[in-house]
Amino acid sequence: MTQRYDFASDNVAGAMPEALESLMTANAGFASSYGTDHVSARAADLIRELLDADAEVRFVASGTAANSLSLAALAQPHEAVLCHEDAHIATDETGAPAFFGAGLGVIGLPGAAGRIDPAALAAALARPDSAHSQAPAVLSLTNATEYGALYPEAALAALVGAAKAAGLKAHLDGARIANAIAAGLPAASLARLGFDIAVLGGTKAGATPSEAIVLFDKTLARRFDARLKHAGQLVSKGRYLAAPWIGLLETGAWTTRAAHSNAMARKLAALSPFPVAHPVEANAVFLQLGREARRGLRTAGWRFETWVGGESRFMCSWATTETAVEELGAALRAVA
Amino acid sequence: MTQRYDFASDNVAGAMPEALESLMTANAGFASSYGTDHVSARAADLIRELLDADAEVRFVASGTAANSLSLAALAQPHEAVLCHEDAHIATDETGAPAFFGAGLGVIGLPGAAGRIDPAALAAALARPDSAHSQAPAVLSLTNATEYGALYPEAALAALVGAAKAAGLKAHLDGARIANAIAAGLPAASLARLGFDIAVLGGTKAGATPSEAIVLFDKTLARRFDARLKHAGQLVSKGRYLAAPWIGLLETGAWTTRAAHSNAMARKLAALSPFPVAHPVEANAVFLQLGREARRGLRTAGWRFETWVGGESRFMCSWATTETAVEELGAALRAVA
Amino acid sequence: MTQRYDFASDNVAGAMPEALESLMTANAGFASSYGTDHVSARAADLIRELLDADAEVRFVASGTAANSLSLAALAQPHEAVLCHEDAHIATDETGAPAFFGAGLGVIGLPGAAGRIDPAALAAALARPDSAHSQAPAVLSLTNATEYGALYPEAALAALVGAAKAAGLKAHLDGARIANAIAAGLPAASLARLGFDIAVLGGTKAGATPSEAIVLFDKTLARRFDARLKHAGQLVSKGRYLAAPWIGLLETGAWTTRAAHSNAMARKLAALSPFPVAHPVEANAVFLQLGREARRGLRTAGWRFETWVGGESRFMCSWATTETAVEELGAALRAVA
Amino acid sequence: MTQRYDFASDNVAGAMPEALESLMTANAGFASSYGTDHVSARAADLIRELLDADAEVRFVASGTAANSLSLAALAQPHEAVLCHEDAHIATDETGAPAFFGAGLGVIGLPGAAGRIDPAALAAALARPDSAHSQAPAVLSLTNATEYGALYPEAALAALVGAAKAAGLKAHLDGARIANAIAAGLPAASLARLGFDIAVLGGTKAGATPSEAIVLFDKTLARRFDARLKHAGQLVSKGRYLAAPWIGLLETGAWTTRAAHSNAMARKLAALSPFPVAHPVEANAVFLQLGREARRGLRTAGWRFETWVGGESRFMCSWATTETAVEELGAALRAVA
Repeated sequence: MTQRYDFASDNVAGAMPEALESLMTANAGFASSYGTDHVSARAADLIRELLDADAEVRFVASGTAANSLSLAALAQPHEAVLCHEDAHIATDETGAPAFFGAGLGVIGLPGAAGRIDPAALAAALARPDSAHSQAPAVLSLTNATEYGALYPEAALAALVGAAKAAGLKAHLDGARIANAIAAGLPAASLARLGFDIAVLGGTKAGATPSEAIVLFDKTLARRFDARLKHAGQLVSKGRYLAAPWIGLLETGAWTTRAAHSNAMARKLAALSPFPVAHPVEANAVFLQLGREARRGLRTAGWRFETWVGGESRFMCSWATTETAVEELGAALRAVA
Repeated sequence: MTQRYDFASDNVAGAMPEALESLMTANAGFASSYGTDHVSARAADLIRELLDADAEVRFVASGTAANSLSLAALAQPHEAVLCHEDAHIATDETGAPAFFGAGLGVIGLPGAAGRIDPAALAAALARPDSAHSQAPAVLSLTNATEYGALYPEAALAALVGAAKAAGLKAHLDGARIANAIAAGLPAASLARLGFDIAVLGGTKAGATPSEAIVLFDKTLARRFDARLKHAGQLVSKGRYLAAPWIGLLETGAWTTRAAHSNAMARKLAALSPFPVAHPVEANAVFLQLGREARRGLRTAGWRFETWVGGESRFMCSWATTETAVEELGAALRAVA
Repeated sequence: MTQRYDFASDNVAGAMPEALESLMTANAGFASSYGTDHVSARAADLIRELLDADAEVRFVASGTAANSLSLAALAQPHEAVLCHEDAHIATDETGAPAFFGAGLGVIGLPGAAGRIDPAALAAALARPDSAHSQAPAVLSLTNATEYGALYPEAALAALVGAAKAAGLKAHLDGARIANAIAAGLPAASLARLGFDIAVLGGTKAGATPSEAIVLFDKTLARRFDARLKHAGQLVSKGRYLAAPWIGLLETGAWTTRAAHSNAMARKLAALSPFPVAHPVEANAVFLQLGREARRGLRTAGWRFETWVGGESRFMCSWATTETAVEELGAALRAVA
Repeated sequence: MTQRYDFASDNVAGAMPEALESLMTANAGFASSYGTDHVSARAADLIRELLDADAEVRFVASGTAANSLSLAALAQPHEAVLCHEDAHIATDETGAPAFFGAGLGVIGLPGAAGRIDPAALAAALARPDSAHSQAPAVLSLTNATEYGALYPEAALAALVGAAKAAGLKAHLDGARIANAIAAGLPAASLARLGFDIAVLGGTKAGATPSEAIVLFDKTLARRFDARLKHAGQLVSKGRYLAAPWIGLLETGAWTTRAAHSNAMARKLAALSPFPVAHPVEANAVFLQLGREARRGLRTAGWRFETWVGGESRFMCSWATTETAVEELGAALRAVA
């Protein structure tokens, strides 16, 4: 029985050809180390161009580190981060924000499809400060959300605006921001929206391991490389973290291939005989399978994750083929 | 004026063909994530074979993280690590051991050419415990040393033996262990010597960014992946950290190319009109240039680092050519 | 309008005469510092006698520190503590466990009246380990609970037994253990039950600021003083933290006065025209007041805390008088 | 043989009558908790009056915590503190600054008698920033120094001025600032000098355990109580930490008794047949005893500490009597 990993996550795919090509190109010759090289400079330029923003950019190998380090730069250890209660930083990073942030707190807020309910945010912001609990200092938004939904620009503006009005900083977990941009969010909106730091996902978008930390607030760049090294995140051969971005962005593949993965998700949703649990707006499809159906699919070799709430997740990626979607569709029908 | 970075460090070189080839191979198809993939498994097997040891192996993107995380696994926050006073963890990692170790102390010991003086170690081990200072819990050895010298196996045995007899754990910073092995240290000695954890350097040996953490004490493997994720070191597309090791080890290039870099260093030392400051036993050449000579070399475009003690470091790598060594030799003679 | 703080908490009372007397006695002459003095030795002896256990004992100034430091000694940073979801360490210590534990996680479990539901514990213990979340390494129980309920000895045995069988350590937050002992829990049961560390509350029981950390597992005592100093908890004039315990324990006041505070709580509950929200088994009374009643009481000068669930808390202490209880009873009737 | 602890440290003395009296007074009645009480308010007022400064004041139980917490508030984890190489925070606090500061670095500077050499400070400030080491963000000065010497106001001004000009913050470890003030340093100078935070020692000056954290930069007061609680330093019965200060300051005993301890040190130095190793400007006397003399003194029951450099320290305190000084003088002559 062949195991089918292709829908297990968007990090099970390899790197796309565009990323590998620029990696190969970057490999030539000698280059200064620790991110001071020409490859890192070029990749940062491309990101600034994409975002139409005069930001500082750094590259790290893991999204957990990118997010946690960013949050630690925005909050004190006795403060907290507000995020969706199912955000990756809250549920899936083994306490990394508290490690990087020396005990930094994480406060989860409710909301459908992974989008924070504005009323819940308002209530959290209205809570008076106390010495006995960690007061919020940062709002972290994930777009696309853990459930494959998107925040429209206006929704982001409302949430970030409310947080900023209350004196908080704003952080974007953009592990799948390429999918959001491919679906219509203007890349230039991130700077306008007032995010202090955004993490742009390379890994799930089809790069070799790489995430870009974008410091829109350039005052944060002071001693940021020291912060990276202190936290074990300043890789010496920095060009290899930056390189894939050149291919992704020069060719536009970062968004065009994200558009493909979004399309594959829509196609899968359309083929599914089971109801979708969340809006299919990016590259994730959550289906309400029963226990029987889940067992049947697994027996047939399909790998996927099932959430606490019972819905099963199928992720599409740049590497997802129409054929694979059809095969999964058929498998779903077979267990329906 | 062309800048010549090639001797600035061994991390300025690109990745060797063998590493890139296995990276490309690893790219094919889907693979489970977070280090549970077939590539990671194969690379770990090769390392176990190399070391002739039944150890657990993990891959991370930075040596700073590999070392700091290992030390945090071996000591409590109110304890300390003994290392050479010029060890990378003591002088060049921006306090990372204290960050990963929640305030873990680092105690530097003297010794020529980066090798810990056994008498200094004995004195440190003899110091009575006190509530008012951080007592040593780990001995960390660097081989090849920061000064390009080697510990012979007997010297390692004496130091590790003394530490273990005093109840300490032992850690190897093997960022350049390939150079030591190429120079004659048996790879299988690491397990015999009693190291609890060894970090094997991929990056400086010619890989894309990757260091292997080898847990000889397999009890440390319990929840080690959670430790990695907590510390932002569990990369989702783990195969890309493991992949280069397959090429390095299957072909033997990890050591044969390290032998080349060692040979280039010896050649450079032989060509130098300036006295060498430390024994040239691996891939580093430290020369006693005067201020004048340093300025002259820099003006001619050569990049190199000068130590606090005044000696200038020239590093060779797998990519160093005979021609480059001769060019640098000529440049040195020109400023002599 | 006089503010009436007496029922706001059990930490609003002063120190009882027995504590002050031994403090004065301890003040005489010179004494060696950092807990190596004769006063600390005597207080530790009394605690060992009370608990009928050969344990190591240390004194610190705050319960938050005592608990957090203990948990950090029992778990790794990438692990977690299981406790009641309303436990002090989970809700009222500003993230201190995560600070002392370098990102240590806290997992809250449900259960009535602050007592962990055994089924919830069983479910938490049955969850398979994952690299992506913090697996439990310690069970922390609070007795008396935050809601003034008690765990009978058999309930403690069942919970600790289940945790130990799953390989966890056990910690007691005994901020109000004097109240539990006064209500019938044998002091000697703590050792028998298998707690690795217990924190015995002095402060809320009528001492000047002091909590005793009892290391039943004496292997934890190795370098524990260094751990205390590293964490800013090794007070130089240690005798002042130990001294009140001599008065509390030599006279038996620690328990007899706790019995008084328990009795005052029962009396208050009996006088209340409002229903009690939780069993009144120790020194707390939670009343279901309406918003109107709360406002009325506050207007009349009474200070008390209202929980998230809406119930209002009135704490009795060694200093609570029958008269005060009657006055509060009358005030409650006035707003009923 | 009676052990004579009286010169072992200034923390071996009990609390002075003035401190105990105000402690007793503070004990009466109920008081709100966590430092919000009338006793804490009054003590803070007295400190503001003493310092002639509109500062925020908090009280903690240990000097290690007071210093480390203050430094963590002034620097980022990837930065460092500059201090004298023999400062308490560098040598005698078991790595506490790195624990509280999540890996915060400590850089020791040389200088005679515990006073930082201005040239060494200038050199440290001139060092260019690097991503590979922790750049200084705070200057910490200790007055009186570890060696019982004083910084004159002009020397403090020069050092703090240089640090501030380079963008650093300034911290005072004033564990023995009472001795400096008793010796002529104007209390009001601390605010003028530009310290951001000063720690005023109560413990060594004759209080029960208590140190005052003075936030001259009041912007630091935001969420400082949460910071205290997060770090296990917010004692619930806060009045007991504040109370001794009322007695110390209302009566002037804090300085008059410090003057006495200074005088006792001068008297001891005058009686000593051995040369003094450092200027006797506060309450410490460092004598150059030989090994023989040290052994003789110890055999006679005298307790004292001997520094790495070989000099032996004798500390005077508020409780040191003329008779004791004469007895020690005689003992010194007996072994001379």
